[in-house]
Amino acid sequence: MDDVAVIGAGMTRFGKHLDKSIKDLVREAAEEAIKDAGIDKKDIQAAYVGNAVAGLMTGQEMIRGQVTLTSMGIDSIPIFNVESACASSSSAFHLGWAATSAGLYDTVLVVGFEKLFDKDKKKSFMALGTAVDLELVLEYFQKAESEMGKEDKIMHEGSGEKRSIFMDMYAWMTRRYMDMYGLTQEHFAKLSVKAHKNGAFNPHAQYQEAVTLEEVLQSGDVSFPLTRMMCSPIGDGSAAVVLSSKGAAAKRTTKPVWVAASVAGSGKITNDPDDTLTRRLAPKAYEVAGIGPEDIDVIEVHDATSPAEIIDLIELGICRGEDAPKWIDEGVLDVDGSKPSNPSGGLVTKGHPVGATGCAQIYEVVKQLRGESGKRQVKDPKIAFTHNGGGILGIDASSMTLHVFKK
Amino acid sequence: MDDVAVIGAGMTRFGKHLDKSIKDLVREAAEEAIKDAGIDKKDIQAAYVGNAVAGLMTGQEMIRGQVTLTSMGIDSIPIFNVESACASSSSAFHLGWAATSAGLYDTVLVVGFEKLFDKDKKKSFMALGTAVDLELVLEYFQKAESEMGKEDKIMHEGSGEKRSIFMDMYAWMTRRYMDMYGLTQEHFAKLSVKAHKNGAFNPHAQYQEAVTLEEVLQSGDVSFPLTRMMCSPIGDGSAAVVLSSKGAAAKRTTKPVWVAASVAGSGKITNDPDDTLTRRLAPKAYEVAGIGPEDIDVIEVHDATSPAEIIDLIELGICRGEDAPKWIDEGVLDVDGSKPSNPSGGLVTKGHPVGATGCAQIYEVVKQLRGESGKRQVKDPKIAFTHNGGGILGIDASSMTLHVFKK
Repeated sequence: MDDVAVIGAGMTRFGKHLDKSIKDLVREAAEEAIKDAGIDKKDIQAAYVGNAVAGLMTGQEMIRGQVTLTSMGIDSIPIFNVESACASSSSAFHLGWAATSAGLYDTVLVVGFEKLFDKDKKKSFMALGTAVDLELVLEYFQKAESEMGKEDKIMHEGSGEKRSIFMDMYAWMTRRYMDMYGLTQEHFAKLSVKAHKNGAFNPHAQYQEAVTLEEVLQSGDVSFPLTRMMCSPIGDGSAAVVLSSKGAAAKRTTKPVWVAASVAGSGKITNDPDDTLTRRLAPKAYEVAGIGPEDIDVIEVHDATSPAEIIDLIELGICRGEDAPKWIDEGVLDVDGSKPSNPSGGLVTKGHPVGATGCAQIYEVVKQLRGESGKRQVKDPKIAFTHNGGGILGIDASSMTLHVFKK
Repeated sequence: MDDVAVIGAGMTRFGKHLDKSIKDLVREAAEEAIKDAGIDKKDIQAAYVGNAVAGLMTGQEMIRGQVTLTSMGIDSIPIFNVESACASSSSAFHLGWAATSAGLYDTVLVVGFEKLFDKDKKKSFMALGTAVDLELVLEYFQKAESEMGKEDKIMHEGSGEKRSIFMDMYAWMTRRYMDMYGLTQEHFAKLSVKAHKNGAFNPHAQYQEAVTLEEVLQSGDVSFPLTRMMCSPIGDGSAAVVLSSKGAAAKRTTKPVWVAASVAGSGKITNDPDDTLTRRLAPKAYEVAGIGPEDIDVIEVHDATSPAEIIDLIELGICRGEDAPKWIDEGVLDVDGSKPSNPSGGLVTKGHPVGATGCAQIYEVVKQLRGESGKRQVKDPKIAFTHNGGGILGIDASSMTLHVFKK
């Protein structure tokens, strides 16, 4: 297994791009990544393309990567379409890394993209709702609902007409953590305030405006303790990275970002908060990279909701559950804190165009490690971590890819 | 890169399985492959799952592999969902081979599946129609149509209501070959007769009845020279194989089938029959395997139509175009001929459940190399080849995976 480096990264702004096709989005991100890598399109020997729901959203059910990349002049190479729900493009990254590490290719492109906005919002929610075992989810949802009580479950971004089983599930899991560690709705609101502050410094973020604690708490109930501003929005976008073998990277860049660990896993069905996919997979990532959670200088976690950010950090062994309220109150997770988390704004404000999210997390930590993150730059990070999950984590059939990067 | 062997293979019968879910189909094929490999489910370290249109056909747009494999007790391992139209599961095989070859895993499972039958036939045709660049195809179709003339274009399996742009495209390409090499509609009918004869000896084939030349020619016009019995049918099914590293294979089987070459490619847009993806990719497969086309003892090619079988063999350099009519007339491609092609019956009679086809081709040649193919057994083959393409080959954005296997 050869060392592999990220030598280029690019992404579109996340948000509502009704006027752009999936080809437009992919082209923008991929061309930036290729330019950033200082290479030419013809140097790319294979491509790994992550997408989740283009079939349902755009009709392009098959050969999504071939269609988008051929349109920008990348053809005659192997192109692999990879799907893993919200972890689609980190899975694609893992496969691209494996092939490069094995010596099959010197240089590969990894792209993630998603087009979720539609004039018919129901279509977007329906597409997102397929990241579960459709047969099993009804059963689990009924079970969860009986434990959730009678809170009004209103969907993010909308009225009572729309509801997302995901947000109800997240709310249910969140309340368990509130009981265990004394976390309150206000703590989660503080995480959302942090996310919005970071997003305001991120030109690619969907939401770029700082908000107050009061505004988060009053932004509309979704499913207690979640309010609207604690939930990741619907979004369109694309992100891309270029990976190179050690030899090729040495010739092409003076600022390689090395892949110290790339581990993937899928989750069995469990209702046990102590036996989640994150808890099972994290030790493997640390072992492969030869680090401990205390060594991480900057991290991007899969905060589909604001509470999920702190839950992820607890499950990753980065924050002790007992310390969680204090960490949030004292700003430990801020860009200038001692354990900066989601400097990009995370899924909550950067946005969450499903298939693009994994690559966008990698984009963020690559820029951070290279010191190119402007006003949201973490001070001199050397080790970075990304945590990207798909499906309903810990509850249903799900997938996850964790990455460790080093300067 | 370590040597990798196929140590187990399994598949369902292809056909109409309205009473079976995608979980049922995958379970049947995967359990047979695992049993055939003489291993336990827990020995599988990663899974690569090929599928094309489950999103549109069943609603399960995301985490298809997680959902199907978790239901049969395969979880907690990395599961990668791979899509490449009709080449989906051979692409999944390629990725599984790459990871095993790189030493990431000792033993991996590759599964392909598809559920295409629906009470609403239009749904199936619509799903299949997405294996193209939806934006570009209209333009190409119009162009092709103007060259095709006014033949009645009636879809396989149905009345004039249904039509498939694929079959029209294949017909158009076929007529070019007729002009070049003196191939006639009767030659293609003979290939269909051979396919039905082989299918009759294949317990997994969708069609298991021998037919006469007259029956093929009178089976209903699709798009000249194609008749209904020359076209691959709609079908459901699954096929699976287990791959092992050299070390693990040595412990587990006395009849390994070695992967001598696994090459993947995607095609640029071209209308030139001399510049197709098959023509470009084949030399690479031969080079990697260290063989020439003359060394192949048994082959499974992507005969979406009967004429495609001979076109593929010409493009692969196995049959000279000038010799094609003679080869067909003299039975060179028969199971007991000197160059047996598609002993399984091929896509035309074994069936073509899109995402399952690549693995099913591999199933066939593995059984052939092991001498386990019963009445359709080719005499003592040592080298086998599989040719699996996705999208409209040579015309549109497309993909292909070629494999060479050795005893």
